Amino acid sequence: MSEPIMNLAIIGAGRIAHVHAAAAARDPRIALKYVSDIRAEAAEALASMHGAASVDVDTIFADDAIDAVLIASSTATHAEFLERAATTGKAVLCEKPIALDIERTKAAVDVVNAHPVACALGFNRRHDPQFAALKAAIEAGRIGQLETLTIISRDPAPPPIDYIKGSGGLFFDMMIHDFDVARWLLDEPIASVFASGGVMVDPAIGEAGDIDTAMVVLTTESGRLCHIQNSRRTAYGYDQRIEAFGSAGMLQAVNETETRLRYTGEAGQLDEPPKHFFLERYGIAYGRELGDLYDAWSTGSAPKATHEDGYQSLRLAAAATQSLAENRSVRLDEIG
Amino acid sequence: MSEPIMNLAIIGAGRIAHVHAAAAARDPRIALKYVSDIRAEAAEALASMHGAASVDVDTIFADDAIDAVLIASSTATHAEFLERAATTGKAVLCEKPIALDIERTKAAVDVVNAHPVACALGFNRRHDPQFAALKAAIEAGRIGQLETLTIISRDPAPPPIDYIKGSGGLFFDMMIHDFDVARWLLDEPIASVFASGGVMVDPAIGEAGDIDTAMVVLTTESGRLCHIQNSRRTAYGYDQRIEAFGSAGMLQAVNETETRLRYTGEAGQLDEPPKHFFLERYGIAYGRELGDLYDAWSTGSAPKATHEDGYQSLRLAAAATQSLAENRSVRLDEIG
Amino acid sequence: MSEPIMNLAIIGAGRIAHVHAAAAARDPRIALKYVSDIRAEAAEALASMHGAASVDVDTIFADDAIDAVLIASSTATHAEFLERAATTGKAVLCEKPIALDIERTKAAVDVVNAHPVACALGFNRRHDPQFAALKAAIEAGRIGQLETLTIISRDPAPPPIDYIKGSGGLFFDMMIHDFDVARWLLDEPIASVFASGGVMVDPAIGEAGDIDTAMVVLTTESGRLCHIQNSRRTAYGYDQRIEAFGSAGMLQAVNETETRLRYTGEAGQLDEPPKHFFLERYGIAYGRELGDLYDAWSTGSAPKATHEDGYQSLRLAAAATQSLAENRSVRLDEIG
Amino acid sequence: MSEPIMNLAIIGAGRIAHVHAAAAARDPRIALKYVSDIRAEAAEALASMHGAASVDVDTIFADDAIDAVLIASSTATHAEFLERAATTGKAVLCEKPIALDIERTKAAVDVVNAHPVACALGFNRRHDPQFAALKAAIEAGRIGQLETLTIISRDPAPPPIDYIKGSGGLFFDMMIHDFDVARWLLDEPIASVFASGGVMVDPAIGEAGDIDTAMVVLTTESGRLCHIQNSRRTAYGYDQRIEAFGSAGMLQAVNETETRLRYTGEAGQLDEPPKHFFLERYGIAYGRELGDLYDAWSTGSAPKATHEDGYQSLRLAAAATQSLAENRSVRLDEIG
Repeated sequence: MSEPIMNLAIIGAGRIAHVHAAAAARDPRIALKYVSDIRAEAAEALASMHGAASVDVDTIFADDAIDAVLIASSTATHAEFLERAATTGKAVLCEKPIALDIERTKAAVDVVNAHPVACALGFNRRHDPQFAALKAAIEAGRIGQLETLTIISRDPAPPPIDYIKGSGGLFFDMMIHDFDVARWLLDEPIASVFASGGVMVDPAIGEAGDIDTAMVVLTTESGRLCHIQNSRRTAYGYDQRIEAFGSAGMLQAVNETETRLRYTGEAGQLDEPPKHFFLERYGIAYGRELGDLYDAWSTGSAPKATHEDGYQSLRLAAAATQSLAENRSVRLDEIG
Repeated sequence: MSEPIMNLAIIGAGRIAHVHAAAAARDPRIALKYVSDIRAEAAEALASMHGAASVDVDTIFADDAIDAVLIASSTATHAEFLERAATTGKAVLCEKPIALDIERTKAAVDVVNAHPVACALGFNRRHDPQFAALKAAIEAGRIGQLETLTIISRDPAPPPIDYIKGSGGLFFDMMIHDFDVARWLLDEPIASVFASGGVMVDPAIGEAGDIDTAMVVLTTESGRLCHIQNSRRTAYGYDQRIEAFGSAGMLQAVNETETRLRYTGEAGQLDEPPKHFFLERYGIAYGRELGDLYDAWSTGSAPKATHEDGYQSLRLAAAATQSLAENRSVRLDEIG
Repeated sequence: MSEPIMNLAIIGAGRIAHVHAAAAARDPRIALKYVSDIRAEAAEALASMHGAASVDVDTIFADDAIDAVLIASSTATHAEFLERAATTGKAVLCEKPIALDIERTKAAVDVVNAHPVACALGFNRRHDPQFAALKAAIEAGRIGQLETLTIISRDPAPPPIDYIKGSGGLFFDMMIHDFDVARWLLDEPIASVFASGGVMVDPAIGEAGDIDTAMVVLTTESGRLCHIQNSRRTAYGYDQRIEAFGSAGMLQAVNETETRLRYTGEAGQLDEPPKHFFLERYGIAYGRELGDLYDAWSTGSAPKATHEDGYQSLRLAAAATQSLAENRSVRLDEIG
Repeated sequence: MSEPIMNLAIIGAGRIAHVHAAAAARDPRIALKYVSDIRAEAAEALASMHGAASVDVDTIFADDAIDAVLIASSTATHAEFLERAATTGKAVLCEKPIALDIERTKAAVDVVNAHPVACALGFNRRHDPQFAALKAAIEAGRIGQLETLTIISRDPAPPPIDYIKGSGGLFFDMMIHDFDVARWLLDEPIASVFASGGVMVDPAIGEAGDIDTAMVVLTTESGRLCHIQNSRRTAYGYDQRIEAFGSAGMLQAVNETETRLRYTGEAGQLDEPPKHFFLERYGIAYGRELGDLYDAWSTGSAPKATHEDGYQSLRLAAAATQSLAENRSVRLDEIG
């Protein structure tokens, strides 16, 4: 095996950092060297699980032997670390979002563009095998011209109210993933956004100034249409489906279950419920993100999702927020 | 069998008239007496198939022995015949729409309300066994509180351009059915409508002043949401699906196929395509419409869909048309 | 409509007779003239529902205006009525079996062969749309050469013990339908039968000298294989499936449900249970049997199933019975 | 992590050895130390991929630091290596079969029983998540009493004729897996076997003295029934299904596909074909076999499949072979 080793540092030692560290451990081409977290014990624990050292972030950016940085720290720190990774010439995989406001995001994006490095953003759904197969089938012309896209995306249960208060709202925190999927599959700039929504799941969410249920319609510059539907709660697990309708057919990505075992009894023919939440549903996808960064780092290929994708999805969230407030279709060019 | 016989006259002798006449022939409680059509030979042909007489419409309305009238003539004549049925005290099943404009519709509705008769409107989908089971499951509380409704409705192929020119447009001609399904399932007044759409199937449809693809979002007065999606063309037949999402679960009505036979070969596991179009898909539903009118006539029960439902759906079509033109959400109380 | 009218008499006035009478009423080409039953009131009731006369059987066979006889009386009378229908030159649809013993069956078959009339046997499954589509797909070469056939056939609940005592046993009473389906689809003489079975559902069935669960393997003369599996009880309704495996693919006929509505909740994704029993599952098939007889009577075409098919299936039941008793494969040429 | 490290040696360096070595590499509790193969370069290549040493087998059995041996060499060598592992006190995972003849197998089983070590046999299907869920559901009483079991198992294409000649025949080479699944799920001794089969796929298989298509019926000591169906070729990939029918319901394990993406077009609604063959279908299962051995080695738990299971399945293959030759049901107690 003549493939080079990519020396990796992870900033953050929370749940997602653990998922990525485990993926790194399974990939012989990636060596986890450092873990850093403001909670030193958390960093120490994760580092020791993988034979890495627990260090402060300055050590990471100062060490020329580090090829790549994975940013899985709190959202407020993403933009700064992203900029430091770019200016120190390190490949970077940054969890989304870069920042909750567009200005800060734009500034970071500008820095990365000024210091080109392999820069991947953690839009995990682009790495999901079923969604990737759907994307490939569209590109292969399986459905002719894609005309309408329908994305249904529902969480099993809302996050704590405190989380919601700092989340930027449903469009920035939850639908942001769907905006990215829409952009990825439509493969064309969005021209306008109409959003409507309400509070159906928990009045406390409304009291916190947010909504928990939403329907959005996107129109692309050429006039194609996309519907996105979100709910913060289901009775049955994580609901993640995509329907791509085109002139020559339709593609449907459906929910995954733990196994395909079917039970038939008095009540009917029962398939398992959808997988519970994102860690279960997108487990394979998380495992592929670092490999994608490795490819970008070693071959110069484009990551499946980049800082630019993060920026554009944020603009859609901002447009949706404005549309909901003003109850009208908002043009993307109204958004900074 | 002590059930009374309902003497029926059919106005119109086209395709749908034939479907209804066949349903009448299978129901021993219904006697088809008269058929009337401006094309005398057509009326004669249909009448002779069922042992009925071909007459002019005045004969129908003048004959006290006629209990019920089925209006399946051209759209422009619906309102007048509906009014005549009401004023002559006959039960009536009227194909939709009552009229293409709201004022004419409202006038006819007022006449019917002033002369109460059993008045059913031909919204066939309310009679579909699968949709009816979905409605019953909602009412039985199977999904708790209904929160969002998603209706996907696509025709296999667009009608001729000449038809489109006189159709009133996609919202009045095609989505009107989905508006009715939405009203039926949401069971609550609609507060506002947002519509977007475009021409993706055939530029000639655009040149005729219409669209062929549309996405609409309805908001009910209590804030619940409904998405409706239409296309005038699929590669695979008639696409008619409903998804009702609620606090305690989800119900999905899916496409019907001719049989459930599955073939597995090199290309994969293949189920039959959806049934081709409405006569195939809603064959059972058409067969039930006259029975529903019979029940209303003989027992005084309310028909599954009434002239009022026809009027309200038309208002939604008008609101959607205005929304598309003005690219904003339109409140229903803006519509007459 | 220049199609001739077929004047029909029904012998028997039980549940199946009612089903057939209703089918006759829906077909304008068939006129039900007589009903006969040893229970005069039952005959009277059915006759009056359809404007027919209640008569004794001699009247039926003596009336030259009667074109066709439907035999739905008790099994013990089938053979005699079948012979009388043939010798009086009437088309006949006989419920299966012709008789429970092979000798009596053979005698009746010989009489019919000596007096050729349109003679259909009530193997309803040949008329089922899904099974018919499977048969057509095999004949169209969809799966290349058919190599193995698997038939799973389970009743929702066992019949009363008294019925079982007079039924001839599971192979003659229940699997006889599957033997016919196997013969129909394999379209080649069966060479040998191996049967095994046991009592799992109800010990009383064993005490009555019968089994309630069975597995059979048929081998055709060219060496192809067929597996048939029966149970007298399920927890979930009528289980009727066929899998045809061939060199170029596989066809699977699956269970039917009342509607295709799917519910998703905490327990999973739930489709309706299979239709409850044969009247629900094969309702369409029953409705087609008389039409098939009409075609045979009016055009001389072969009915989908004939007296010969009844005889051959009975030989398979006899071979299975012997195989079970002797715990070995039995060659068909050992059976009379 | 206080879990002990299990030092592993692999005998054999073919395809399956590579699969197991990769699984070992992903498990931090397992250290691959040695690889041995009669083809030294093959051993060298595999060893170097994983930082192990290429050695002769004597070195493996002489090294007290080796805790476990994985036997993936040619079938003819399995029994001897299994015995050596047992007598040198090493845990062992042996690919199936132990030997092709019962006597040799019995001798090896006796040696293992005399020198108790953790001994796992490579019946990969017991480790498949879907089948394991089916087993767990049976044990949880989901279907009440299991009454009949149906196993359909078809390969995508036959192996080379030379392989077939040395394989021991379909029952020993292919159906052996299904015999093990049947024993595992029925959880009760088999009393008798009836087998029938033929040559439908390739006459050359018949000329080599084997069959390529088979149907078998097993009867347990308490009288329950199991059907197994094999074909050496499909048009659509690897067909691996199980249906467990019981007094309270039915469980069905169905084929796996690469993704669940569905395409709908003119021809119908198309799911992906089943995964191609065993490496794809049972990839997860292979990855779990070493973990199961680790558990047995470290905790003394029983492996999911043992040498005893290997022996008993071989007896079923022998009984099936005799049944096919003599065209009768063979009692297991006739087999040594």
